[in-house]
Amino acid sequence: MSKFWSPIVSRLTPYTPGEQPKIANLVKLNTNENPYGPSPRAVEAIRREIGDSLRLYPNPDAEPLKIAIAKRHELQGITTREVFVGNGSDEVLAHAFQALLKHGAPILFPDITYSFYPTYAGLYEVDYKATPLADDFTIRADDYLGHGEAIGGIIFPNPNAPTGCLMPLAGIERILQGNPGRVVIVDEAYIDFGGETAIPLVARYPNLLVVQTLSKSRSLAGLRVGFAVGHADLIDALERVKNSFNSYPLDRPAIAGATAAIEDEAYFLRTCQAVITSREKLVAQLSELGFEVLPSAANFVFARHAQHDAAKLAAGLRADGIIVRHFSHARINQFLRITIGTDVACQTLVDALKKQLA
Amino acid sequence: MSKFWSPIVSRLTPYTPGEQPKIANLVKLNTNENPYGPSPRAVEAIRREIGDSLRLYPNPDAEPLKIAIAKRHELQGITTREVFVGNGSDEVLAHAFQALLKHGAPILFPDITYSFYPTYAGLYEVDYKATPLADDFTIRADDYLGHGEAIGGIIFPNPNAPTGCLMPLAGIERILQGNPGRVVIVDEAYIDFGGETAIPLVARYPNLLVVQTLSKSRSLAGLRVGFAVGHADLIDALERVKNSFNSYPLDRPAIAGATAAIEDEAYFLRTCQAVITSREKLVAQLSELGFEVLPSAANFVFARHAQHDAAKLAAGLRADGIIVRHFSHARINQFLRITIGTDVACQTLVDALKKQLA
Repeated sequence: MSKFWSPIVSRLTPYTPGEQPKIANLVKLNTNENPYGPSPRAVEAIRREIGDSLRLYPNPDAEPLKIAIAKRHELQGITTREVFVGNGSDEVLAHAFQALLKHGAPILFPDITYSFYPTYAGLYEVDYKATPLADDFTIRADDYLGHGEAIGGIIFPNPNAPTGCLMPLAGIERILQGNPGRVVIVDEAYIDFGGETAIPLVARYPNLLVVQTLSKSRSLAGLRVGFAVGHADLIDALERVKNSFNSYPLDRPAIAGATAAIEDEAYFLRTCQAVITSREKLVAQLSELGFEVLPSAANFVFARHAQHDAAKLAAGLRADGIIVRHFSHARINQFLRITIGTDVACQTLVDALKKQLA
Repeated sequence: MSKFWSPIVSRLTPYTPGEQPKIANLVKLNTNENPYGPSPRAVEAIRREIGDSLRLYPNPDAEPLKIAIAKRHELQGITTREVFVGNGSDEVLAHAFQALLKHGAPILFPDITYSFYPTYAGLYEVDYKATPLADDFTIRADDYLGHGEAIGGIIFPNPNAPTGCLMPLAGIERILQGNPGRVVIVDEAYIDFGGETAIPLVARYPNLLVVQTLSKSRSLAGLRVGFAVGHADLIDALERVKNSFNSYPLDRPAIAGATAAIEDEAYFLRTCQAVITSREKLVAQLSELGFEVLPSAANFVFARHAQHDAAKLAAGLRADGIIVRHFSHARINQFLRITIGTDVACQTLVDALKKQLA
């Protein structure tokens, strides 16, 4: 704390990202990275961008990327006017908090969810009410209905993090219909691993903003690209904030790589399917070891063991060179969140767990 | 405007960056990009980063880059604790407005300056007083003294943009001494083209934040990297805001390339000197054509002609495939801001101007 700090600074509770350890040969199953590399077409597109042209500013609107995203959803009526891009979906979400959720009333999100949401709320001085998940750890659509304009907006991930549980589109549609005066943000960071995107609803619901990232299903966490799809009025709000914050949030390599990654649908589908297949195998193995595994539509599973303390299991795995994520929130502190790695990495994890449980 | 917009959104006046035209073969002297490419070592370092590792998140603290920046200034007592990095100096400045300049009192900056400052002020609801430049277009240090805590802070570029005029370190030191209770931000985007950085003052003035960019003197506008150097308390404030906004603002290519660029001091010095030499030659040629050219310590010049309207000159140049920047602010609407290009580009400009003035 310092006299030079603006008052808000000391009130912040900054987000703590999953550890990025520098130790070699770790089995890293803690930050939901994709075990497969990015599309070779994306790698090639970035390589072509690396040279003297780096002396020039990027396209401030990242137009090629917006065009690629819009084209992928053109049958749903999406044009570039319905697309916003940012430096990771974290930046997109930050702008959305400021541009669309700040209405002088508390916003709603689940009590167990992406832990960056309360941080954003702190940064932009937005009140919030953490709405408890059901006993089975799903989000109950009913909890988000009937508040009128006594709330400032709604945000939740689908599938939710760190549970992996999916809300069907019918639930999302009910929430949208029940909140015609407020923006509903569906954070689809993990949607491509078994969920159904809400993007087709954008044409019918002007209050829907869908946020996605290239960090997970496009295997580009290291490139920092996320985007939002929504009614042009919502996108306009995000653009106004973005252009009051940083004209060029996406650098040249990011625009080139992200565009090529979006265009390489075949690679995307193949690697997503490989992750899903590995997940189903891991779920079976963990269940066999006595874990309760929540139904996951993500590239991670959330699992607990009735006889074994999660923090101890995590520590034991770490001693074996395997890192998973453990959260201290009381309601979920007996769970481990385990990223789906390659089949080899998953087997290493299963073997280590077997040893510990024995 | 839409009912879904947070109240702040409709009050914003977003920044308009210099045009990035898609027309080939333009002589582009409008956005102060470096005419020389980035360091070959930077290009090589980025290339090495492009591959499967992009599936992994970057180092959230961009540590290698902080180490390189600290090392370059170690004789001035700078360690990584005194260094903050961001996605272009625009992002660094945005965070600084929120973290260090928002104290419920108007901040001060020059009336003629980087036009993003009033935009940031709007975004973070910080009042400001635009302080007129002297008649010779220099910043008068005296205007920034004696306000006590009736002001929230001070920010100005040195050299100033778009004038190019430099304030000597003695002036900056007087402003620092005159404002012990407030943060003074010196935005040194252009300092490497003939100015003296204020970084050596950081050890003595806990209220000084120096902001620099790799977009100009390191020729990496396309990579989006900027940084700040200041007392660890000020850096802490920026880190707290950054970690409440986006954990990983710098992607892997940016961290790798920026680190190598900072380490390649020889290339940096050589290309800066080349720009300075071209500038001096251009200043002489413009003066010969009857332009008044403000003394520039930047990689651009700011020039007006007593007999020729600036907007008309700019339009004429554009018709000849040369773009420069023209601002509509009444006090400077007879000036052209011309980026220093290669000697060939500068000669093309001079020839085109000769034709117009004839």
